[in-house]
Amino acid sequence: MKKISIVGASGYTGKELIKILLNHHLVSISHITSESNSGSKLEDVHPEFRNMTNLVFEKYNLEKIVKDSDIVFLALPHGKSIDIAGQLLKHKKMVIDLSADFRIKDSVMYEKWYKVKHTQKNILEKAVYGLPELYRDKIKKAELIANPGCYATSIILALYPLIKENLININSIVVDSKSGVSGAGKKLDSMYLYNSANENFLPYSVGSHRHTPEIEQILTQESKNNVSITFVPHLTPMYRGIVSDIYADLKDKKMDTEKIYKIYQKYYIKEKFVRLLPIGTYPAVKNVCCTNFCDIGLSVMKNTNKVVVISSIDNLVKGASGQAVQNMNIMCNFDEKMGLL
Amino acid sequence: MKKISIVGASGYTGKELIKILLNHHLVSISHITSESNSGSKLEDVHPEFRNMTNLVFEKYNLEKIVKDSDIVFLALPHGKSIDIAGQLLKHKKMVIDLSADFRIKDSVMYEKWYKVKHTQKNILEKAVYGLPELYRDKIKKAELIANPGCYATSIILALYPLIKENLININSIVVDSKSGVSGAGKKLDSMYLYNSANENFLPYSVGSHRHTPEIEQILTQESKNNVSITFVPHLTPMYRGIVSDIYADLKDKKMDTEKIYKIYQKYYIKEKFVRLLPIGTYPAVKNVCCTNFCDIGLSVMKNTNKVVVISSIDNLVKGASGQAVQNMNIMCNFDEKMGLL
Amino acid sequence: MKKISIVGASGYTGKELIKILLNHHLVSISHITSESNSGSKLEDVHPEFRNMTNLVFEKYNLEKIVKDSDIVFLALPHGKSIDIAGQLLKHKKMVIDLSADFRIKDSVMYEKWYKVKHTQKNILEKAVYGLPELYRDKIKKAELIANPGCYATSIILALYPLIKENLININSIVVDSKSGVSGAGKKLDSMYLYNSANENFLPYSVGSHRHTPEIEQILTQESKNNVSITFVPHLTPMYRGIVSDIYADLKDKKMDTEKIYKIYQKYYIKEKFVRLLPIGTYPAVKNVCCTNFCDIGLSVMKNTNKVVVISSIDNLVKGASGQAVQNMNIMCNFDEKMGLL
Amino acid sequence: MKKISIVGASGYTGKELIKILLNHHLVSISHITSESNSGSKLEDVHPEFRNMTNLVFEKYNLEKIVKDSDIVFLALPHGKSIDIAGQLLKHKKMVIDLSADFRIKDSVMYEKWYKVKHTQKNILEKAVYGLPELYRDKIKKAELIANPGCYATSIILALYPLIKENLININSIVVDSKSGVSGAGKKLDSMYLYNSANENFLPYSVGSHRHTPEIEQILTQESKNNVSITFVPHLTPMYRGIVSDIYADLKDKKMDTEKIYKIYQKYYIKEKFVRLLPIGTYPAVKNVCCTNFCDIGLSVMKNTNKVVVISSIDNLVKGASGQAVQNMNIMCNFDEKMGLL
Repeated sequence: MKKISIVGASGYTGKELIKILLNHHLVSISHITSESNSGSKLEDVHPEFRNMTNLVFEKYNLEKIVKDSDIVFLALPHGKSIDIAGQLLKHKKMVIDLSADFRIKDSVMYEKWYKVKHTQKNILEKAVYGLPELYRDKIKKAELIANPGCYATSIILALYPLIKENLININSIVVDSKSGVSGAGKKLDSMYLYNSANENFLPYSVGSHRHTPEIEQILTQESKNNVSITFVPHLTPMYRGIVSDIYADLKDKKMDTEKIYKIYQKYYIKEKFVRLLPIGTYPAVKNVCCTNFCDIGLSVMKNTNKVVVISSIDNLVKGASGQAVQNMNIMCNFDEKMGLL
Repeated sequence: MKKISIVGASGYTGKELIKILLNHHLVSISHITSESNSGSKLEDVHPEFRNMTNLVFEKYNLEKIVKDSDIVFLALPHGKSIDIAGQLLKHKKMVIDLSADFRIKDSVMYEKWYKVKHTQKNILEKAVYGLPELYRDKIKKAELIANPGCYATSIILALYPLIKENLININSIVVDSKSGVSGAGKKLDSMYLYNSANENFLPYSVGSHRHTPEIEQILTQESKNNVSITFVPHLTPMYRGIVSDIYADLKDKKMDTEKIYKIYQKYYIKEKFVRLLPIGTYPAVKNVCCTNFCDIGLSVMKNTNKVVVISSIDNLVKGASGQAVQNMNIMCNFDEKMGLL
Repeated sequence: MKKISIVGASGYTGKELIKILLNHHLVSISHITSESNSGSKLEDVHPEFRNMTNLVFEKYNLEKIVKDSDIVFLALPHGKSIDIAGQLLKHKKMVIDLSADFRIKDSVMYEKWYKVKHTQKNILEKAVYGLPELYRDKIKKAELIANPGCYATSIILALYPLIKENLININSIVVDSKSGVSGAGKKLDSMYLYNSANENFLPYSVGSHRHTPEIEQILTQESKNNVSITFVPHLTPMYRGIVSDIYADLKDKKMDTEKIYKIYQKYYIKEKFVRLLPIGTYPAVKNVCCTNFCDIGLSVMKNTNKVVVISSIDNLVKGASGQAVQNMNIMCNFDEKMGLL
Repeated sequence: MKKISIVGASGYTGKELIKILLNHHLVSISHITSESNSGSKLEDVHPEFRNMTNLVFEKYNLEKIVKDSDIVFLALPHGKSIDIAGQLLKHKKMVIDLSADFRIKDSVMYEKWYKVKHTQKNILEKAVYGLPELYRDKIKKAELIANPGCYATSIILALYPLIKENLININSIVVDSKSGVSGAGKKLDSMYLYNSANENFLPYSVGSHRHTPEIEQILTQESKNNVSITFVPHLTPMYRGIVSDIYADLKDKKMDTEKIYKIYQKYYIKEKFVRLLPIGTYPAVKNVCCTNFCDIGLSVMKNTNKVVVISSIDNLVKGASGQAVQNMNIMCNFDEKMGLL
């Protein structure tokens, strides 16, 4: 039985993490922290947990957490994990960070996009990008996991075989993503009011979304080429879910849907959480909602020699807390699906 | 005072048309027809019209309609307008057809995409594609208007200046469109049940949507090149509205957002219903909902030399009934905005 | 042509008011004020107004408003209208106040429910409760209108004939109301975030909603009895609309649906904006959405001798800005429906 | 390990049942039947099940089901369970019927409300109404469970202590219920199209909903008085969830919220799935969504001497499939919470 603590547990990813971990048979939750809610019972902040657990929000206390935890999840806002991760690693705790703080290896790049000084460059090097389908072996041995962004997960999984097999022109990639409103977290911004988001659909951060450097870093690394993407995310009137449509120019005009499909099968046939859909069918948010699955459908457009790959995940599960638990399972040598299926 | 009839008035576009025309000061509605609802009062089928009008659905009767109408709107399913338009034109009525039956000049192409025999090829030639921002002069003199499809409207208006000025590689065009559920009309299909569409988002007709030939026909005609597009439409959990994101490779690497913006201004500054948004701002469905506006925002991605143009319309207004009334206003020499603003 | 100003125009009711008044042929808007948005163009705050008007938000300036206005609408938060109304009345302006500040005749009651000191008790007396179906004659001669609350409008119109004709036990009234989220205005409260309100439904202010004293005051006045109601409002996952279900014990066991229906007909047959639905049919929010109508359906339950009356309005139109314009039309001797149908 | 079959598994309750049972450690699913989908893999009909199970829909085959099942769930339309339940009971199978076919003891009443002839009156007598909080002891020994209706569950649990303790006037009960659209099942009816149900809210079956006799039967039985209720259900724009507001006249004017609360505590303190909320707080659909909980909040209105009890459940879980599994757990002597928490 592994002991778990969650630092910053009062946001959406924290809540989702608690839900998943309460159903996981090989772990128990020792501490959940929240600066704003400390002292309150979880069930008073989130009444859905009534009769399910007696957890109480505490202030962050390094000593207590070190004493009672084997694994610590950080579900803090960007910038807030850096030092805490440093402290916990010193005490030999496994750390899974759900923020962006350890995703970008180039600290200058991180500081440019997140406007935060990176004070732990030495442990930045050790951090493993927690996308199990690409980096399972490294995750097994990791001390610190940088859990991927939600858009990044949906986009990298969809592009990986194309990139790895060198099938597309590297700068032709267009990514048109759509996310439910929970992607924004609990921010009190008028854009996320019901009255703004409902019956609305809109692009935002056009060409400037913060997941861009993380995606380009992984694609560059895997393709051995300098990848730049055209990325437009959109806000969709639903709670959960992401669909990413990816368009790219095929190098070889003789490529067709069947051939690409076989390549994707090679990559994903053994993956429990990536579901390659039958040719001619495509993902829908409803089918992945509240699960750790990433569904992928694809097609080659013969008229324009473009390939279209469409993926869908639940941003709060495979795009955040579910993937974090998948990483924990790998690190702890548990069945990778434990608590997730 | 012009007399109007609407043939096939019980669907969504018919209902929207009635609403707009009841507020139009220079027309009156003589007849509304519906085979399934004939004999019923409009207010009994759509209780929202109670206290607003005493219209009653009738069966289609050529003689009556000819007698009492100057202009006839056809809001029938695809395939059903062909012969009726033929009859009405013989009686010198102005006809505005909201179906696809007269949009595609190549009848073989029409028959391939719509699986219907085209029996009025002679009048197909006369039909004017009713997109006022491109074809206002022809519309003025038209007898028969082929009112554009909703996706087609949002896409052609967004691409027109790029195409006309020869700024992009013609086969690099990617169109990622999102539509509210009303785009599907009143079809009793399980895909359109609340329980299917709500909290869901999904692509459909990937690379095979019926508006494709209509869009490619106009773009080909205006660019004087054979245009093929990569087009993926999506179903969005909202009632009304379309957002189309268009991506294309710029021919000239020195193009930037400001230059493209100026070109768009040249095209649209005088257009009442196309609103070019300030640089750095983008359309949102909420801003065009229930209006005849088409909002457009654009940006050049310097890293990939792609231009992104994003447009938004209300599919039931500028994408159907509002545009039909705009066409009527032009044909009748009314103020083009009458009843629409 | 009457000149209009709107004080506090950046909220939902202000926006709705501008929309209605831009389509009203006998008025023009001189000033719109907003402390937080002063200096901004309306179209920059609400891009939906682009190409429709050049209005700019200004700070409130009594002199300017007095100079350029015949009628002034106050769409301010509760408590903020009191002194401004006083100033404007001194300058002989007609004032229509959309807040609660002049609805409750008993200033002690007002202060208890709204936690605001009432400093204009003398003009409180003059204020006319702006429910045209009950008080049209008084409205004609009014200087100051207290525009009713949204719930109050839906409840009083539904109960009025029962109360006036003394048909029910006065303390048996149960009101179960449901409102869309726009009822809360633009408040940045986590309860109104998309992620809280979507796919949720909940009661709030159980037995303690601020519209209670206003409703009880009118019912008491019209019944000549001291009326207390049991009132539970609910938040519904939609933008606009209210449905109020009202249950009461009939005094006479021989009453039936037909008899009650005839009484309601007597009261409402001539009313343009109250639509009594055919027996066996009931209101739905979709049918009144974006209109100034109040739909009413009713039934007598023979098994329990209770009458059920169900009403529906659009909270932003008949529940706020539409009713304010209806009041203006009456005060100005315009056609009561002008701009509203 | 108990073997399970589900007859009529392609509807919403069938799908929900499969989901719950796949996560239940002490059962395995042998057969799922569907006349319309027989021969199809579950994952092809509901792609969300891909990678989770290899179940295939079969035609109903008594012999096979008898051979491979200990317990059979019937998730058929009303009227279709009667004979199948009869066959299965003859073969000594435990049967849990999710339809209304065995809920109403008076077969004449059943036939009147459901327009179906009841051909198994002898087993109707044996059927136990599967509301564990009231009838746990009978359920333990039952062969045939009539699983309660969704509205009935939310209403009976909310009223039970009041009725049992004889606290209210028996014919003063008003029930105003609100349900998400999934309550209607997969019916292809225009009322349940996204375009009809979205941004709409409406009453239906006013005073005539089919759950009425089932509710009145249980209340009558428990109160030993002839109970008639005033019941108005409503359709709410959300997928899942019911809120029932119940109003009744208290017999004793000295009753207050605290006293009633203590009585409810006595009834429900030991119940795992009924959560009595702290005084001053009320249920919200979000808190019970996808769970087997029934949340209850209550208040006494001193001004009118009425008690208001508000309950909320997920209609597909505690209102259908979750409660069915709770019943199975009791019948099989499993932990009552197994698979449900």
